[in-house]
Amino acid sequence: MSDVAQNGPAPEPAVPPVWTSDEAYRAGAVDLLGILAYGAIAAFERLASDARMAPTMSDKVHVASMAALQVAHFHRVRQRLADLDVDVMVAMKPFHAPFNAFHDYTQPKDWLEGLVWAYVGNGFAADFYREVAAFVDADTRTLVHEVLADEAHADFVVEKVRRAIDADHKVAGRLALWGRRLVGEALSQAQRVAADRDALTSLLTGTVDRPGMDLPAISRMFSRLVENHTRRMARLGLQS
Amino acid sequence: MSDVAQNGPAPEPAVPPVWTSDEAYRAGAVDLLGILAYGAIAAFERLASDARMAPTMSDKVHVASMAALQVAHFHRVRQRLADLDVDVMVAMKPFHAPFNAFHDYTQPKDWLEGLVWAYVGNGFAADFYREVAAFVDADTRTLVHEVLADEAHADFVVEKVRRAIDADHKVAGRLALWGRRLVGEALSQAQRVAADRDALTSLLTGTVDRPGMDLPAISRMFSRLVENHTRRMARLGLQS
Repeated sequence: MSDVAQNGPAPEPAVPPVWTSDEAYRAGAVDLLGILAYGAIAAFERLASDARMAPTMSDKVHVASMAALQVAHFHRVRQRLADLDVDVMVAMKPFHAPFNAFHDYTQPKDWLEGLVWAYVGNGFAADFYREVAAFVDADTRTLVHEVLADEAHADFVVEKVRRAIDADHKVAGRLALWGRRLVGEALSQAQRVAADRDALTSLLTGTVDRPGMDLPAISRMFSRLVENHTRRMARLGLQS
Repeated sequence: MSDVAQNGPAPEPAVPPVWTSDEAYRAGAVDLLGILAYGAIAAFERLASDARMAPTMSDKVHVASMAALQVAHFHRVRQRLADLDVDVMVAMKPFHAPFNAFHDYTQPKDWLEGLVWAYVGNGFAADFYREVAAFVDADTRTLVHEVLADEAHADFVVEKVRRAIDADHKVAGRLALWGRRLVGEALSQAQRVAADRDALTSLLTGTVDRPGMDLPAISRMFSRLVENHTRRMARLGLQS
């Protein structure tokens, strides 16, 4: 049952607002988990392709291990959805099209672009999911945070990209453009998802009987996303 | 230290045969582990490509999970090699060329060929590794057996291939040819490995002071490999 504040009008006995609110909340949480599940599979495929482009065997092993971790994340999210009586395949379905579009529009041309994709693209998406997760139950939120933690890979990418820039400064300009393009595409697909998925959007914005972000809060959230993105680009030695 | 029977001439004090035999044994075990490690990475890449060809999302998830399992196997073998003070990257190196050649010559054209590759090709290789593992220490042998167990994937492949043959009988002829080609290529690369890696070969054949297989035993081993291959093909509904 929901523990949200009851600010709406007096309930109709047949469909009490607690139930309504719970259902809306649940649909939003399921959407968030569906995004994470499909995002994990899509990231697996992206990283598996990167492994193929790896310049050394040890790089290949590292990226293959990151790909395998995405599959482990998928299975954790699938289990959480099963606990909520939802089939992961059903929960992922609405997100095939936007994710596939994002991946099709942002195919890395080489190993370095793949590394930046994994760090900057996934980092931006992860920040956004964490913002949404602030509005779900504690168990789901903990899972989201655990699934999105990827400091080991971040360190790996930062070291490889910085070394490549040291070796050839021209690389920095190309990768900076690439980073900007990734975020542009991510935002455009996120807008598409937001427009299609009311339940997910209303997790962030709240409903008549559940608090959410008002417009200034949403604007502050976007500032945080952009700041984090800028910090990641700077860590890579790239202008955002 | 080795516990093998001492049948050789009386040892020179400076280099006792126990030490020599141990070193030769150790080099063979390291080769076996190196093959398993590189085989796991190569299988990861093969399965990741198969995931891309999967006809349904649930097939994709299954094959991606199998790919992730290969990475877990790699890390277990890496740990065992580390226990023996051997860097996995060094242990794998001699096997890049034969594995890459095998993978290049046996690129599945579609989803079904990929499934047969995973079951028939990996199954044949796994049987051979298990034969070699009979001659290594118990810890390494247990690891080899655990890493090679893949019944879950076998059941998946058998069901999918049988269903495809039921839907279109012509598929059976094409896949039967494919299965034969896989084993032919596997044998030819295995011969290359055997010719190059004395330590590995002498695990099977034994040395002056360590028992191994004589020629009739090796011939019986090949019969076992072929029988198991025939059984796998039959399980798929294919003529071997």
